[in-house]
Amino acid sequence: MAFQSIGQGTLLAPASLAMVSCGKEGIVPNIITIAWMGIVNSDPPMLSISVKPSRYSYDLIDETDEFAVNLVNRDLMKSADFCGVRSGRDLDKFKECGLHALEAIGLSHAPCIAESPLYLSCKVKQKIALGSHTMFLADIAAVAAQGHLLDDKGKLDLSKTNLVAYSHGEYAVLGQPEGFFGYSIARSEVLRRRLRKF
Amino acid sequence: MAFQSIGQGTLLAPASLAMVSCGKEGIVPNIITIAWMGIVNSDPPMLSISVKPSRYSYDLIDETDEFAVNLVNRDLMKSADFCGVRSGRDLDKFKECGLHALEAIGLSHAPCIAESPLYLSCKVKQKIALGSHTMFLADIAAVAAQGHLLDDKGKLDLSKTNLVAYSHGEYAVLGQPEGFFGYSIARSEVLRRRLRKF
Repeated sequence: MAFQSIGQGTLLAPASLAMVSCGKEGIVPNIITIAWMGIVNSDPPMLSISVKPSRYSYDLIDETDEFAVNLVNRDLMKSADFCGVRSGRDLDKFKECGLHALEAIGLSHAPCIAESPLYLSCKVKQKIALGSHTMFLADIAAVAAQGHLLDDKGKLDLSKTNLVAYSHGEYAVLGQPEGFFGYSIARSEVLRRRLRKF
Repeated sequence: MAFQSIGQGTLLAPASLAMVSCGKEGIVPNIITIAWMGIVNSDPPMLSISVKPSRYSYDLIDETDEFAVNLVNRDLMKSADFCGVRSGRDLDKFKECGLHALEAIGLSHAPCIAESPLYLSCKVKQKIALGSHTMFLADIAAVAAQGHLLDDKGKLDLSKTNLVAYSHGEYAVLGQPEGFFGYSIARSEVLRRRLRKF
């Protein structure tokens, strides 16, 4: 094995992939697909998304200080791609993709996407212009998941849906989990109990 | 389908997963595994990582303003978990995991991990304390990939390695790509050409 330089680039892979929904009173709500995002803080829970100021969604998010982050599974993959390459200036993306806007818990302006497995309601706290993109740092005000992803104790199992990651210009579905946080040092009884699932 | 509120939380999934290497003269270099990260800007290329100030790597990154982001494939998954749960104060993580530190292109202090499929050399530009974590915003000064991931024209094919994502406390390997950026509106000849691979 030997490394070869491939120049500068935004080559973090996998990257998250999410459909970010936004809106305000009196206009059709919009969706922008984003991979330039990540959790930035645990307490309080915060995430960041980076958006080009030229994008139609930029002003909507900038004016309302709200957006919802909707996770993408295989069923939404083609819609996610479409919402990443087309502009809401020209068309109603919810309608074009056969998706439905729902009120998002904790938000006043931005809807969530009814067909997404899970969404995070986000309130913008800080904006930082970095060059091509502006980073919106936001508090995660609420999280909601589809009921069928929760067991009878309310525990979330995301491996029941087929989440999609963005990897160097391509979309790939996650396989079943092959380990859990701490598994490399877990005691054998914990491994046995947890690995039943794996 | 119906949403159920599951409270607040850092539930972005999938999240990136990377082993972040850092170091300075005269001490053993260290590795911290991070999922709270993301690309934040395309031009110039920038990413952010969030680190708790109590972590051993925090001071190393804070003092040197350098780190390398090493992508994680299935072969590195167990080491990545280990480097996320154990502290470099107590042990030499490179030695414990059988990994090797190499000089990283463009950096003076932080090494890269010889066994990683691809690394990004990062130089810290700004630090923002957000609560539990501090966000390091960094320029991506260089990117290098293992030669066997490049074709004879130098084009990178990350689907040749088995990249790992972090999803709600679990590790999952990415499947083969099922689409590419723009595929939802691509002309049929482009689809035919690109989909040969899929």
